[in-house]
Parts: sequence; structure tokens; C-alpha cells
Amino acid sequence: MYRLGVNFDLTYITAGIVDETGKILIKESIPTLKYRKFDDIIKDMAHLCIRIVNKYGLDMDKDIELIGIGCYGSIDWHTGVMIYSSYFGFRNAPIADEMKKYVKIPVICDNDANCYALAESRIGATKGLKNTIIITIGTAISGGIIIDNNIYHGMAYGAGEFGHHVIIFGGEQCECGRKGCWAAYASTNALVRDSRIMAVRHPESMLFKMVNGDIRLMSFRTPFEAAKKGDIYAKEIIEAYTKYVALGLINVVNVLQPEAIAIGGKIRKIGQEFINDVNKIVDEKTFGQYEDDKRTKVLMCDLDYDAVIIGATMLKH
Amino acid sequence: MYRLGVNFDLTYITAGIVDETGKILIKESIPTLKYRKFDDIIKDMAHLCIRIVNKYGLDMDKDIELIGIGCYGSIDWHTGVMIYSSYFGFRNAPIADEMKKYVKIPVICDNDANCYALAESRIGATKGLKNTIIITIGTAISGGIIIDNNIYHGMAYGAGEFGHHVIIFGGEQCECGRKGCWAAYASTNALVRDSRIMAVRHPESMLFKMVNGDIRLMSFRTPFEAAKKGDIYAKEIIEAYTKYVALGLINVVNVLQPEAIAIGGKIRKIGQEFINDVNKIVDEKTFGQYEDDKRTKVLMCDLDYDAVIIGATMLKH
Repeated sequence: MYRLGVNFDLTYITAGIVDETGKILIKESIPTLKYRKFDDIIKDMAHLCIRIVNKYGLDMDKDIELIGIGCYGSIDWHTGVMIYSSYFGFRNAPIADEMKKYVKIPVICDNDANCYALAESRIGATKGLKNTIIITIGTAISGGIIIDNNIYHGMAYGAGEFGHHVIIFGGEQCECGRKGCWAAYASTNALVRDSRIMAVRHPESMLFKMVNGDIRLMSFRTPFEAAKKGDIYAKEIIEAYTKYVALGLINVVNVLQPEAIAIGGKIRKIGQEFINDVNKIVDEKTFGQYEDDKRTKVLMCDLDYDAVIIGATMLKH
Repeated sequence: MYRLGVNFDLTYITAGIVDETGKILIKESIPTLKYRKFDDIIKDMAHLCIRIVNKYGLDMDKDIELIGIGCYGSIDWHTGVMIYSSYFGFRNAPIADEMKKYVKIPVICDNDANCYALAESRIGATKGLKNTIIITIGTAISGGIIIDNNIYHGMAYGAGEFGHHVIIFGGEQCECGRKGCWAAYASTNALVRDSRIMAVRHPESMLFKMVNGDIRLMSFRTPFEAAKKGDIYAKEIIEAYTKYVALGLINVVNVLQPEAIAIGGKIRKIGQEFINDVNKIVDEKTFGQYEDDKRTKVLMCDLDYDAVIIGATMLKH
């Protein structure tokens, strides 16, 4: 038997057929076009699922055990209802029920970061560990919590909003409305913001020259590349950014002391060296002087964003 | 059958006989005298236990099912070893084994805040809820996490160090060595510190007059009392303090979204009104617009510090 995993994201809906080892056999995407009616989005999602099953020469009813959907928002996994998603503007949207209009097999839903965390804990970086966390660092910061080998949801299925814990009271404005959230310092957006400011202040910097003075071209990679080439301004930015990332992780460790935190999202592309630098600070600054084998490890996620598709097929039903 | 609960604190060791409903029938304390040898402390603890059992006319072997000990530090509850306690200076101290030299019944140990949380979740403010947290706010800030009706320990049994999550990067020095921890703003020690500074700056304030100009007499109650009497300086202190307390709680809610957080410790003495003020901010500022019945409630703990004794008798063995 195979399972079908869906990554229901803001820009794309991607569906994949996943085998029992967690390998994606075939996948395909359609644009989400999120401002459409909910019904229309789900209709296209269902048709995408049906199409790739046919394309791979399988029969939905006979060969596919279930469809798992990882969604950008808070999901009541018991009912498959998206309770709340600020980005979609949905409230109490019955995703599973709507899908069932098109398919007869079980449909289960969960939050995308939860699916990511589940996939990592089954076949990825945190495999074999009992209590783990994944944190995706990209334009935003999200997270998934695995406790006792299962997803920890929180009372309204919204646990794991690590990006929205305040690290600087009254600090930088965050998209969520509060000020000083971790995401406002440790997301790649925050890194780009700080790099742009630094570049403009120092036109002599490599940071400025690498984007030919057009700071709109600044990416989260630029300061890392400039720092590697010796630019002191980029080094200053990266040093501060590394501290911000570590600070939030230390907060998480002091509260939850998981066996490991695996970092996913865009920042993965920067590579293991950055994770090592972060890990060093976390090790030094975490509360309590525990022995090496009793300290939370900061790891890099093994899987890329397709982990959402894989994890969705690992949801319990 | 009865159980014997012990609160192994820095200043006192208190033992109590607890019945099946969680009621303390008799209790007695001895000074900890923490700078003594570990063996001597435990010897006195065992004798205290034996003494109160005899005093209550019971037989240790026949009438007492187990001894549960709530300890100030990180405890490996599987083995009853205190892995680490910065305040005692212990490392890998075999509390249960040492106790077993004096008694034949089972001895189980856990962290004191965990015992507190367990007692509240069984017979106190968070009774009937599945995922809850208690946070004690006093000279320090500690916490216990209940997930799925059981204590969540963390990998080195040190989870729940809520007081040592940073809310102001580079802020006030914390006793733990880092700067800007929540405890450095929201503990009663922090409140007293800020009240003293304010009093000295404003000798015309009620805050100053209430301690007759001797700021050493400032207690955590003074600013609350002065604010109630209309002192604008005390009001400013209390307003800021309320925000700090709420800020840390919001961070916890955004990460863990428990059904409730119950506040214990010295701050309980200030009363429900303070908890209500905190709750209002938490409700307003928590991430995500959830409906009323899907929001974490901030409650006051039902039980006082004896909850540690009660909770210790509820530990699993």
C-alpha cells in the first residue's frame, strides 16, 4: 500500500505518492491561488491527487491507504478542520470533509510544521529520539514538537509558534503585531533587513558592492558570502544573527530540554558550519551544567520542505 | 494506606503523611543546613520520616506505601539521583539509595516544581485538564510541565526552567549568568529591586515613605500596597511588572499552548486581582485569534508550597 501526502502551502499545493519507507515516488504541484473560494482550492487539490495516482498507474481506492495533508495553519487533526490561518484568512474550514466529496479513502490533516517534525523524527535527523523539536527558519519561523514520539498539538492545535516568543521586549516590530519576537531577529527576513541597513550605512562594504548598491537584491545568503570573503560589516551582521538564532534556541532548551532541535527551512542552505556556530553558543549558555550526553543537540534537518508531504503520510488516523 | 511526602528545600526539609485524597494529616520540618555532608542531610531526612510516622501511630512498613521526595534540583526520577543542583552544589547525589539505608519501603524522587504541578493537576487548580503548566513566581521563577496528565521531564530532567528564558537580550543580569532572563524582570526579587530604585529616586513617593526611607525593608508587597493607595510611582512599577509577568506567560503560551497555566509561589499572596490583570494582557497579546474556549487560561494555584509534599506522594513508581 502507498499513501498520498499533500503540502498545502500558501503558494503551491504539492501532492506526492509516498511508499512505506517514506520515499516520494512521484510528485506534482499546482498554484494555490489562495484568494479563491475555499471550495475551489480544495477541488483542485482533490483533482491533483486523483491525477497523480492515475499517472503512476495506481487505483485510489485499492492502492492508496489514505491522504495526509500538511497545512499552513492551526488544524484540528481530529476533524480535519483548519481552525485558523491568518495567511489564508480561513476560520473553521473543513478541509477533510471537503476532500471527501471527491475521494472515498480516509483524509487526515495536520499543521505543516508538525508533519515536517514527524517526518524528521521517523526517517530524518531526529530518528530514534523520543522528545524532539524542529524549527524552520525562513521568511518566518515555525516549529513542530514531538513528545513521546508523537506530535504535541497544544489546546487549540497551535503549539510550536516559537517565532512568536519575545526576546527583546519592545524591540523590532513583528508581523504578528507584537514587538521583539524572535522571528523579528532570527528569520531570514530579519537578516536581510539588517544587512540592507548595514549596506546603506557602509557603501564601502562588500555587502553593498555584492548587490551593486541595489539593496533590493540583498538575499539571506549575501551577508554569509560577504562575511566569508572577510567583509567586517557582514561579519558583524552574521555574528549578531548567530547570537539571535542561538538565543531563541537556548530559551526553548531551558523550557523543554528536548533531546534534539533540528533546524529546517531556508537557513539549511547556509550549511553545517552555521549550525555548528549556533550549537557552540547554545552549549555554552544553556541553563544547568549538564554532561555532554545530557545536552540538547542542535542539528540540521535531513529533509527539505518535501518533508511536509512525507510527514503527512505518517499521520495517525 | 498512606504515603509520605517530603519537600527537600534549601532551608527546610518538611515531611508529611498524606492520605489518598491528597490531604496532609501531619507534617513536621527540620532545618536543611545545606552546607553539611550529603549523607548527614539524608540521615536527618530519614529520621524525620520515621519520627512522624511513629508520632501518628503508624507503622512504616505496614501503613506507608512509599516515600515521595520533591527536591530542589534536576532529579533522575528513574534512579532517585539528584543529577545537578546549583544551589545545593550536588552532582549525581543518590537520594533514594541513601534513604533506603534507613527505610525498607519504596522511595521515589522528583523535582519540587514537578511535584507541585502534579498536585495541582490532580487535586488543585488544573484538575481535570490534560496539558498544564504551573509556574511559581517568588525570589526565583520555576515551573513544572504536565503533558498528557504526567510530568514532562526533559532529557536531563531539567525542563521547565521558564525563569531562564531571555525576554530582553542583553538586559538585567540574572543569577544564572545570562542577561535578560524572565526571572530578572518577573521574580519578586526583580520587583523589589525596581521598587527600591524608584523609591530612592522619588523620596516624595509613598513607596519611599512606607519603608520609612529604609529601602532594605522593601518587600514585594510594598509596591502593590502603595499602588492601591494611589502612589503614581508604585503604579508605574506595578504596571511594568504586570507586563513582564504577562510577557513571559505569552511566550510560554505561544510555544506550548497548554489548557491552563497556574501561578504559584509568593506572588499568590497578592491575590486574584493581579492574576486577572495578567490574564487580560495574555488574552490580548497571544498569537492567533482563537475563540474564548480555545485560549490558555492563567489561573492562581489552589495549593500553597505544601503542594510539593502532596505531589511527591502522587509520583509514579
